[in-house]
Amino acid sequence: MAYLNENYLKLQAGYLFPEIARRVREFCDANPEAAKKLIRCGIGDVTEPLPRAAVEAMRRAVEELGRRETFRGYGPEQGYEFLRSTIAQHDYRDRKIDIEDDEIFVSDGSKCDCGYILDILGAHNKVAITDPVYPVYVDTNVMAGHTGPARKDGSYEGIMYLPCTAENNFVPEPPKEHVDLVYLCFPNNPTGAVATREQLARWIEYAREHEALLLFDAAYEAYISQPEIPHSIFEIPGALESAIELRSFSKTGGFTGVRCGFTVMSKKLLARTESGKKLPLHPLWHRRWSTKANSVSYPVQRGAEALYLPDGRKQVRALIDHYMGNAKILRDACAKIALKVYGGVNAPYIWVRAREGLTSWQMFDQMLGEINVVITPGSGFGARGEGYFRISAFNRRENAEEVAQRLQKL
Amino acid sequence: MAYLNENYLKLQAGYLFPEIARRVREFCDANPEAAKKLIRCGIGDVTEPLPRAAVEAMRRAVEELGRRETFRGYGPEQGYEFLRSTIAQHDYRDRKIDIEDDEIFVSDGSKCDCGYILDILGAHNKVAITDPVYPVYVDTNVMAGHTGPARKDGSYEGIMYLPCTAENNFVPEPPKEHVDLVYLCFPNNPTGAVATREQLARWIEYAREHEALLLFDAAYEAYISQPEIPHSIFEIPGALESAIELRSFSKTGGFTGVRCGFTVMSKKLLARTESGKKLPLHPLWHRRWSTKANSVSYPVQRGAEALYLPDGRKQVRALIDHYMGNAKILRDACAKIALKVYGGVNAPYIWVRAREGLTSWQMFDQMLGEINVVITPGSGFGARGEGYFRISAFNRRENAEEVAQRLQKL
Repeated sequence: MAYLNENYLKLQAGYLFPEIARRVREFCDANPEAAKKLIRCGIGDVTEPLPRAAVEAMRRAVEELGRRETFRGYGPEQGYEFLRSTIAQHDYRDRKIDIEDDEIFVSDGSKCDCGYILDILGAHNKVAITDPVYPVYVDTNVMAGHTGPARKDGSYEGIMYLPCTAENNFVPEPPKEHVDLVYLCFPNNPTGAVATREQLARWIEYAREHEALLLFDAAYEAYISQPEIPHSIFEIPGALESAIELRSFSKTGGFTGVRCGFTVMSKKLLARTESGKKLPLHPLWHRRWSTKANSVSYPVQRGAEALYLPDGRKQVRALIDHYMGNAKILRDACAKIALKVYGGVNAPYIWVRAREGLTSWQMFDQMLGEINVVITPGSGFGARGEGYFRISAFNRRENAEEVAQRLQKL
Repeated sequence: MAYLNENYLKLQAGYLFPEIARRVREFCDANPEAAKKLIRCGIGDVTEPLPRAAVEAMRRAVEELGRRETFRGYGPEQGYEFLRSTIAQHDYRDRKIDIEDDEIFVSDGSKCDCGYILDILGAHNKVAITDPVYPVYVDTNVMAGHTGPARKDGSYEGIMYLPCTAENNFVPEPPKEHVDLVYLCFPNNPTGAVATREQLARWIEYAREHEALLLFDAAYEAYISQPEIPHSIFEIPGALESAIELRSFSKTGGFTGVRCGFTVMSKKLLARTESGKKLPLHPLWHRRWSTKANSVSYPVQRGAEALYLPDGRKQVRALIDHYMGNAKILRDACAKIALKVYGGVNAPYIWVRAREGLTSWQMFDQMLGEINVVITPGSGFGARGEGYFRISAFNRRENAEEVAQRLQKL
């Protein structure tokens, strides 16, 4: 009989968001009246319609596929040149970061890239992950067999956890010990924290010293409002040799259901064999895409490209301003009832200390039961998230205002 | 320094199709006049525009995403219920195969599924793969570390190859030895062969006896013209407990650039742990999608759904009739010049014996140089493909006719 991947059996309970969905469903079934008033600030999913520029571009692309003269079949496995070049130019070269077109790899989303990237990495890397953290970084490493079993608190043996606490403003310093692979995400999901240029420079210094690889998730970079905060790890000298950047159109163009993101991998980035030979990762990543994928739907790639055109940029800006307007309303509302709040200034997430003595899930149940608002329990993001919860600013304005009002009754 | 996945270093040369692309590019650069007359029958990529039903459905879906009232963000990670249910009903339940909606997993294509499926399987499976074969089955196993190094002929140690030759009509019988995992593809890419009900029943019998898992790639089932040939492995009693089926919209709706396919995994299918515990694979596959993906672009899923509606079905039928018309023309043309031909009756691929004494790549170069036609060298599909080449029937009618004429000059 075929062997299964036993690492899956180490995984704890459901993945966080399905678990929230389950609890909400049960609550709604039991309380049909309250269910009608439910407002979801849980999963970080956008609510506003796609930018018009993307809609028009995707419509045109679909029509192209419907006509013989303009039909296209398989595209280049790493993404169409028109999109790779647009990304490299606007997000990097225009900002004086030396990224070539073929260092951009178009994907169906950052969540997917988190899993895909482990395809090309070895099994013996010592992995460091922040705590709290986007659960996908941890779970994909568990699935790949890079960890031991789970402990009681939900953490896994074999992973080095980097505590992100109020004391360090939710930005960890590099560890004393050696690690090979570090996951960093700024602006952070779930805490909304950002790293300063100096903090990132210390991480690059660490990476150079330890020859470590940084996986830098910049999915929320467009939400940065403070001009001194870096948008890309590659703004830090030396990062091309030390980091892979992950980006997404999910939270810029509202592509959570359209599915598009990309990774940036410099040809200068090296990794090692067991025998100590140093080789560039780029050819492996290229090969991974050639062999395992046929890139992303053509209309989707045209939609993503449109986000970079003048109209698209304006429309994306308006979306971000909208969500950040919500963030301010929610932040202020929490502060008003003396909840301790973090984030929400350079990120669409507000990270809130639960009421004294309440666990994250208790706070979740209380908010669901008393004010019919769905949040995300901080403990779902890791042991250090216990005692916190995350409010997502991805919502309609009237919902954000209503949540702000209901919070006053809590 | 981070360790890389050294298994990638075992991979031979480029993946087949990029290698063809390279040779064609070089030829065209050196022969700009001949380049203008080039006809590509190499990569199995469709040429005809998308069915109108899919275009309209995708356009409507894109518009939905552009309006607040109908906007959708993250979809269910395993695919929308509307599509899973449509597939299960039309492709299975209507044909008296007992498949539930949640046994359908929507993906961005069969090529991708070939890689994804290894995520949930263990590292110690004895793998059997036909020869010749779609290279992705082999390469994904190499990448996952399931093989030893490559041999001189391009085969890999640790894989059991099942020879598909003219003697067995390119349909192998089950081996005498035990294997855990078998890749089968019927109608076959590249040989165009199909397996009869009796042949598949012997495979299911083998799978039951050895508790082996069959990965059954049915991407070309819609091209079957002979009524007695099974379209699904699940037409064979006992297959639900023994097989996973892979299907694609690439060659039915012309979705090679749109990207959509699916796997069918019954909840009855078990696999084992190292300690011998037998567990269903379904929850692992479900979890893989929850953790590592956010399913497929919403407009794409609506496009796929439309292929099942009455108009869509008619349009798909017309596409398949078109390509199979090409197959007949090409088959007849090869036979006329006394080339030995196989396939092309229940599959869009014609498998042709190269001229006496010529290798596959020599035949490739000859056809490229003399008649400016790109085919796929059989040896690119495995050692047993040496001395053959594949002609794809995916082309415009005038190209198929022109190739048929040029073949007479060969």
